[in-house]
Amino acid sequence: MLHLHHCISARSFRPLWMLEELQLPYQLHMLPFPPRAKARWFLEENPLGTVPLLVQGDVRMTESAAMCQYLATTHPDAGLDVATTHPAYGAYLNWLHMSDATLTFPQTLVLRYGRFESSERLQPQVVQDYTRWFLARLRAVEAAVAHNDYLCAGRFTAADVAVGYALLLAQHLGLVEQFGPATQAYWQRLQQRPGYQRAMAVQVQAAEEQGVPTTPAPDTQP
Amino acid sequence: MLHLHHCISARSFRPLWMLEELQLPYQLHMLPFPPRAKARWFLEENPLGTVPLLVQGDVRMTESAAMCQYLATTHPDAGLDVATTHPAYGAYLNWLHMSDATLTFPQTLVLRYGRFESSERLQPQVVQDYTRWFLARLRAVEAAVAHNDYLCAGRFTAADVAVGYALLLAQHLGLVEQFGPATQAYWQRLQQRPGYQRAMAVQVQAAEEQGVPTTPAPDTQP
Repeated sequence: MLHLHHCISARSFRPLWMLEELQLPYQLHMLPFPPRAKARWFLEENPLGTVPLLVQGDVRMTESAAMCQYLATTHPDAGLDVATTHPAYGAYLNWLHMSDATLTFPQTLVLRYGRFESSERLQPQVVQDYTRWFLARLRAVEAAVAHNDYLCAGRFTAADVAVGYALLLAQHLGLVEQFGPATQAYWQRLQQRPGYQRAMAVQVQAAEEQGVPTTPAPDTQP
Repeated sequence: MLHLHHCISARSFRPLWMLEELQLPYQLHMLPFPPRAKARWFLEENPLGTVPLLVQGDVRMTESAAMCQYLATTHPDAGLDVATTHPAYGAYLNWLHMSDATLTFPQTLVLRYGRFESSERLQPQVVQDYTRWFLARLRAVEAAVAHNDYLCAGRFTAADVAVGYALLLAQHLGLVEQFGPATQAYWQRLQQRPGYQRAMAVQVQAAEEQGVPTTPAPDTQP
């Protein structure tokens, strides 16, 4: 059985969306945000105190984009993976890594120093620097989807889930209007997917059942 | 033929180290740092203006940790990859992703707001926040190498190259003394590798031959 520890709309939405795309059985453990402060017991499960945590037997993972690849590779029949022999394999890996290191981390700075820190620790300069940084890197997505429905391999893959989460986070930050037109259309396509919509519904339902606040709390994990 | 675009000691050291571990033929293209400002022609090669850029035929990659995995997977006989069926596959992917998203990006903030920005834009608070953030996450490495020579699978893999670069960057930042004892010993082991030492020598030699400054310039890519 797969166990996913998740906070509403945090990076852990990536593996949740993957699980719904793959229609796998799993147990979803909702946590208040930030778990390090509001669910101290979780440090015994994950000493880093971060979500996501994905546990399957002896496998314990903490990196959301790695989980997308892991779930895709270990369920190859679902067609969300790109084989190592496929011409798009390099691009596929590149998008998976870019999704978090290049397209999500800068946004966590915008959140942290624009919203989550106490007022005397807010840093408007950092917010501006990394909003620009993110939007500049997002041009790579605009180029990729200008003439394609998805990022690589001519079909929907785990890379679209991983990058899609960066777009969801940008939507929380109010940046969608600064997306290029192809990126805006791509983001609309992703949100139409039944797997995305199920993941959105499941996290709210699970939070209500488990008594965790349902307010979206995108995650800087300071 | 593989072409790697590289700045001395930037993230592009990851694929360079991998190429030397694999002993593959490649062409190394040295760039002054930051390339976006000092080698404008490079924007035609990579519109993001970032290093690394790895080109092999139609494959064009920009994410350094993805390149480690790509090179390991496409040269399986060298034994630097972990097979999808191996019990350590999940851990392997997790380390590859953690190497950049979690262990390198915070350090680029320390560099940017501690050294590279003009004096009125330096941000001591951000430097302190993300030095702590990096060292807290580095505890995962300490736990992994406390009783193992390498991070996963009981042997040296591409994950060690990817994480090893984060330790090299931390050394440039003067943080080695704050590593745990197992991480310090691990970092010593990595530096003993002939592949690491060749990569170190090759970048200096190539910079001299190509007329590029040899000063280490770890990369924030602002």
